[in-house]
Amino acid sequence: MRDLSEIRLLIYDCDGVLTDNRVIVSERGEESAVFHRGDGTGIRLLREAGVRQVIVSTELNPIVEHRARKLRIDVIHAVEDKRQAVVDYCKVNGFPLEAAMFIGNDVNDLEAMRTVGACGCPRDAEPEVLAISHWISEKNGGFGVIRELSREILKSREESRG
Amino acid sequence: MRDLSEIRLLIYDCDGVLTDNRVIVSERGEESAVFHRGDGTGIRLLREAGVRQVIVSTELNPIVEHRARKLRIDVIHAVEDKRQAVVDYCKVNGFPLEAAMFIGNDVNDLEAMRTVGACGCPRDAEPEVLAISHWISEKNGGFGVIRELSREILKSREESRG
Amino acid sequence: MRDLSEIRLLIYDCDGVLTDNRVIVSERGEESAVFHRGDGTGIRLLREAGVRQVIVSTELNPIVEHRARKLRIDVIHAVEDKRQAVVDYCKVNGFPLEAAMFIGNDVNDLEAMRTVGACGCPRDAEPEVLAISHWISEKNGGFGVIRELSREILKSREESRG
Amino acid sequence: MRDLSEIRLLIYDCDGVLTDNRVIVSERGEESAVFHRGDGTGIRLLREAGVRQVIVSTELNPIVEHRARKLRIDVIHAVEDKRQAVVDYCKVNGFPLEAAMFIGNDVNDLEAMRTVGACGCPRDAEPEVLAISHWISEKNGGFGVIRELSREILKSREESRG
Repeated sequence: MRDLSEIRLLIYDCDGVLTDNRVIVSERGEESAVFHRGDGTGIRLLREAGVRQVIVSTELNPIVEHRARKLRIDVIHAVEDKRQAVVDYCKVNGFPLEAAMFIGNDVNDLEAMRTVGACGCPRDAEPEVLAISHWISEKNGGFGVIRELSREILKSREESRG
Repeated sequence: MRDLSEIRLLIYDCDGVLTDNRVIVSERGEESAVFHRGDGTGIRLLREAGVRQVIVSTELNPIVEHRARKLRIDVIHAVEDKRQAVVDYCKVNGFPLEAAMFIGNDVNDLEAMRTVGACGCPRDAEPEVLAISHWISEKNGGFGVIRELSREILKSREESRG
Repeated sequence: MRDLSEIRLLIYDCDGVLTDNRVIVSERGEESAVFHRGDGTGIRLLREAGVRQVIVSTELNPIVEHRARKLRIDVIHAVEDKRQAVVDYCKVNGFPLEAAMFIGNDVNDLEAMRTVGACGCPRDAEPEVLAISHWISEKNGGFGVIRELSREILKSREESRG
Repeated sequence: MRDLSEIRLLIYDCDGVLTDNRVIVSERGEESAVFHRGDGTGIRLLREAGVRQVIVSTELNPIVEHRARKLRIDVIHAVEDKRQAVVDYCKVNGFPLEAAMFIGNDVNDLEAMRTVGACGCPRDAEPEVLAISHWISEKNGGFGVIRELSREILKSREESRG
């Protein structure tokens, strides 16, 4: 794993990372998800520090679109294969794969996590994801994982500037 | 109880199993319930492994209908008597009762649970349900019970294949 | 306190008893609250055992109305003074105050709780309420308090029948 | 820090103090937040004791507006700079800064917290906020922090009256 201070691109899986992996379903069939304001602060601090951030989404999910717009970050639309979507995004936007870090929580994130330079997950991720993660949060998914990560990346940058 | 590897049909009670047994009620009277994405993954993995899955519902509940459609599984509509609905479903669809497993959480699931080959429940099920369950999850209802069950069924299948 | 087996009328405060005392507020100003299905089962079992049940509400709250209709129980509308509303309800409906039990959670329930034959609360009620309660649930408000109470009342009835 | 009994104005940050810092996002993009009824009671008791209370909000947030109207307290609209908004509010309304207490939870509250006579936070506030707080609640944000604070302020007043 590269040093956290060298991460230039952060890629977030949404469900289980930015949310607690739960979905509210109403009688009318409308879905909702619950996000954490602390992550919003962490994302802002990382952006101000020059770290690019994107959310990867496997379907056209309006909830993710709304949240990403509020957070002012992009959404990568992956059609089944998150790994390929990540590879394409890095190529098009000029990020070496080694400078990217993927935060996931479930088995469909594994390939993408293995492709980039570093990967992490919330403490309540699935065992296979925990097993390969370079960084594991103390918070559960949806309760400030990215805020916690932002702290560590920013601290690591300060230390490396030394 | 039959070996988990021999289960061919899984029948899920919804409230308290796929949800945390809570219901959101709005001023307009609209109800919502909260589901877990990990269960969605577990249901997909089980389907790919050839296990049929259905949700049993005691009333015409639009929330259950929406969730079942998303999960691409059927809903059995039970009018009060879940046991009879399960027996009918197995007969019509050619599943021996011994190859079916019922996951419930409350006393109105007891008869159906006793009728099929195996039964299970979340760890926070009612005492009467816990008492007769062959399998009890480590997660609470609505927090990934089916994901946990899918792991055990798939592992048990691999082991039985030897 | 009278024996639980002698309770003929149960009066439930809503917020903090049937709910976790939280209220969801949307951008449009619509409010929602979260109820527990297990309480619904408990209320049904108590009704089948002949125990009358009502919810007391301090304001015209459509959420309470919707939930009460679903549970098929009445709502007592209290204008500020829950104690007087309880006294009136008992008089009109022919229940001696000693045969009524009030389940509350906060200081505005204290007077009503002291007026009837027995009172109880969730374990996370306010200290003043815990201090006078004859019965305290093991569950937090909104997580099955009435289901728990229904068990104890029904068991106590069975025992008193000997 | 001044004695709690001398606080004449309480200023509440909303997210993470009156809520658990989470935001519900629907498919239509509508946001909701979850408040605690106990805080509503605490705010009423403090108002009856003559303590002025306001919510400070960094954006025009309709959720905050709805909740504030229900609680019958004002909203201070801060454009980025909460500290300046607090200073202005105190000046216009004739409160010395030393008689004001700010309850916050994140780094964007720090300057405002340092400007007034006393400050506090929920126990799950960010470390920088915990570090400067004169008062830290036992409850997490959104689970009755202000109810808890109201108890301590009212007790402290009674004691100082001796």
